[in-house]
Amino acid sequence: MEASTLSRIGLAGLAVMGQNLALNIAEKGFPISVYNRTTSKVDETLQRAQSEGPFPLSGHHTPRDFVLSLQRPRSVIILVKAGSPVDQTIAALSEHMESGDCIIDGGNEWYENTERRIQEVSNRGILYLGMGVSGGEEGARNGPSLMPGGSFQAYNNIKDILEKVAAQVEDGPCVTYIGEGGAGNFVKMVHNGIEYGDMQLISEAYDVLKNVGGLSNEELGEIFGEWNRGELESFLIEITSDIFKVKDDLADGGLVDKILDKTGMKGTGKWTVQQAAELSVAAPTIAASLDCRYLSGLKEERENAAEILREAGLKEEVGAVKSGIDKKRLIDDVRQALYASKICSYAQGMNLLRAKSIEKGWNLNLGEMARIWKGGCIIRAVFLDRIKKAYQRNPNLASLIVDPDFAREMVQRQAAWRRVVGTAISAGISTPGMCASLAYFDTYRRARLPANLVQAQRDLFGAHTYERIDRPGAFHTEWTKLARKSNSAGVLL
Amino acid sequence: MEASTLSRIGLAGLAVMGQNLALNIAEKGFPISVYNRTTSKVDETLQRAQSEGPFPLSGHHTPRDFVLSLQRPRSVIILVKAGSPVDQTIAALSEHMESGDCIIDGGNEWYENTERRIQEVSNRGILYLGMGVSGGEEGARNGPSLMPGGSFQAYNNIKDILEKVAAQVEDGPCVTYIGEGGAGNFVKMVHNGIEYGDMQLISEAYDVLKNVGGLSNEELGEIFGEWNRGELESFLIEITSDIFKVKDDLADGGLVDKILDKTGMKGTGKWTVQQAAELSVAAPTIAASLDCRYLSGLKEERENAAEILREAGLKEEVGAVKSGIDKKRLIDDVRQALYASKICSYAQGMNLLRAKSIEKGWNLNLGEMARIWKGGCIIRAVFLDRIKKAYQRNPNLASLIVDPDFAREMVQRQAAWRRVVGTAISAGISTPGMCASLAYFDTYRRARLPANLVQAQRDLFGAHTYERIDRPGAFHTEWTKLARKSNSAGVLL
Repeated sequence: MEASTLSRIGLAGLAVMGQNLALNIAEKGFPISVYNRTTSKVDETLQRAQSEGPFPLSGHHTPRDFVLSLQRPRSVIILVKAGSPVDQTIAALSEHMESGDCIIDGGNEWYENTERRIQEVSNRGILYLGMGVSGGEEGARNGPSLMPGGSFQAYNNIKDILEKVAAQVEDGPCVTYIGEGGAGNFVKMVHNGIEYGDMQLISEAYDVLKNVGGLSNEELGEIFGEWNRGELESFLIEITSDIFKVKDDLADGGLVDKILDKTGMKGTGKWTVQQAAELSVAAPTIAASLDCRYLSGLKEERENAAEILREAGLKEEVGAVKSGIDKKRLIDDVRQALYASKICSYAQGMNLLRAKSIEKGWNLNLGEMARIWKGGCIIRAVFLDRIKKAYQRNPNLASLIVDPDFAREMVQRQAAWRRVVGTAISAGISTPGMCASLAYFDTYRRARLPANLVQAQRDLFGAHTYERIDRPGAFHTEWTKLARKSNSAGVLL
Repeated sequence: MEASTLSRIGLAGLAVMGQNLALNIAEKGFPISVYNRTTSKVDETLQRAQSEGPFPLSGHHTPRDFVLSLQRPRSVIILVKAGSPVDQTIAALSEHMESGDCIIDGGNEWYENTERRIQEVSNRGILYLGMGVSGGEEGARNGPSLMPGGSFQAYNNIKDILEKVAAQVEDGPCVTYIGEGGAGNFVKMVHNGIEYGDMQLISEAYDVLKNVGGLSNEELGEIFGEWNRGELESFLIEITSDIFKVKDDLADGGLVDKILDKTGMKGTGKWTVQQAAELSVAAPTIAASLDCRYLSGLKEERENAAEILREAGLKEEVGAVKSGIDKKRLIDDVRQALYASKICSYAQGMNLLRAKSIEKGWNLNLGEMARIWKGGCIIRAVFLDRIKKAYQRNPNLASLIVDPDFAREMVQRQAAWRRVVGTAISAGISTPGMCASLAYFDTYRRARLPANLVQAQRDLFGAHTYERIDRPGAFHTEWTKLARKSNSAGVLL
């Protein structure tokens, strides 16, 4: 092939996400080669490039043809299932690649796999990026949020492409170089953990409004639509409003009511929770979201438990709570509770990013992370701009919830937040995410916790020693001996 | 040495736990050899064997002398810091051991390390046990709870010793063969996770009684003493009562008030939370306990947050809540809330054990696990006998909270439980563990969760498909298109 006919970039792995991202790149004017092991997908993509374009896209049926169709240094995006399929694809492609070429994995990969692969391909001089891609199928086609991490050189080779392909918001494209090693995958993982939190909190708001407030799907569609014009404005609130508007075409009523309440998941939420524990970062809202997915899966057990634990008996309690409800106030309270809970969840995610950044020396710019999530991705939301600004004002912010603006908002909303969680608890409606956020808030903003008792217990049974509030040093006390002595003597020591 | 002068068993690693366990074994009449790299510890142990005994204990200053002083097949317990010190000790000792001999690691080891070592020493025919030991220093000396897992042959070689050395309760010694591989370490890890939960819940009860109920240390000491004569009877409640009775000898007032509210930890709680996530088991109470330890460590941040987030402003709220409080009823409510929260925490731990048992084929007997925790260990409690019986009645119990007895208790206590959590939330006192338990209960016993909305969201943005409640199959809907159509048409589809 002549140099002029070589493609600027290649993409291997043509499931829907891969096809859409390839078409997006081609549409932006970058000639792209595509490859897939099952070659029918190549032809499918070529057809779409014609029908949706025409766009400059060439299809290839062997790894060799595919790789040799690229300008050097070659850049190949792979979009296959995380894990061993990525290793297999790297093996098949890298055979034909040369020093200075780059592989970009766009999957939801565990960051340590990326770090292993960076090492492996570096033996042959090949560069590597682990690039988080968020936005689902629609985002991939029209502008995703991109989180590339790994080789800075490799990033610079395709920076112009990524900046055109990414979602565009008023302060630029939703992409930046994240950091070295597996930083891009790690940031995407935390993004997904935050996404779990958002979805859980929204489902709790729905639950309270429906089962305590008695709102219909029509009302819920309206309310979420209204919320999407205020501080909660975001993709997830917008689509929630849409969901309530969809009627069932197989039966009467709203389609949402016919959906089985068992939630699937793909692993990034689990990793987020495990990493939070590993890094000594409290992320209870994200953990509660994961737990709810697990518990949702136990449908039969729950049905059985509902009978045994007299869920029916609760109807009276719900009825009592309901009868005292001011619907308009409940709706407004739930909006505030959702917003405050959401801020706590983002604070957890951001602190997790910072902790990992320190451990790995990634030097993550948290404000930039918030900025590139403003468009394209599932958690895109107006308030991310305020998170960006909070970290711009103070890059060393200990937590989002002590940023002066967010702190003011939290304090303003706490009464409503407490009312919602308290009402749900009285009514036997579980709001694990909102509860976890509120407990997080109430724990974090307490100068004095009852952890002194835990330390006393640990010193008593394990001689772990304790510190004092009034003087330095490590202390140990013979608690039992002293307590029993005081007891038997009946007087103070 | 002649056979008659050889010791029945050996113990290497003579920190306090090791010394105490060796003295316990010797006191029960089993001649024991002891060894420690720092030889002064050997001499210290010999002196204690004289002064506390005399007990049949011999000291050795080299690994070779130590190993050769044992009857064959030799059994050597090692009690050193988990991780590489264990590997080093194994290397030093196994050099002198023979096929059929056995090493028993009594540390808080990660179960996979034990499984690796089982493989490693098996090359030389050496058997291996990973044995959880709970009870702290006092338990090691007078009767711990023992959780040996690994080689069944090795267990049988020392079964008579373990059964004498373990704590004794009315239905036998607190030891049983746990299962193959790292089962013993895993069960000990979950025991520790449950211990985290218990300590957190007790500290929350303390917090509410002190800061909402206004109870003094004297009153708290009495209340916990009273609780220790009822359904909450347990080691941790007993020592909590003792702790409140200890006066400060450096300043006025109770010592507990002078202890810094920063909690340490050693890793088993973290592993428990990570394993729960790995095994798709919800363990929110244990996770909340871990998070509180992490947040307790951020003392300076919390002091700063307390100012910014107007903790002071809450005083009025606490005051308002307090003024409406019936102290006696609050105390009784807190007792019930603590008990119900605790059952949920144990349900989580037990389900975690079952999930791992299935994954690894360990065939764990959950009732037996509850039985061996009845004495010796930190979580020893009267109600463990009822857990044992619940699993004896039904080994396939889906969750402790649906056992008929526990279910009845939960239902009876739920009103008090909701009042306590609701009161704490109104007062701005965080009760993350009780909240997590209650949310767990309320989620588990709901036949219908709002997870249908989450599935709709996932189908909308990721084409993940959903199931229906009224017919089989996987469905996908073009939500946005249909919602907007319905909107623009202004009519139902």
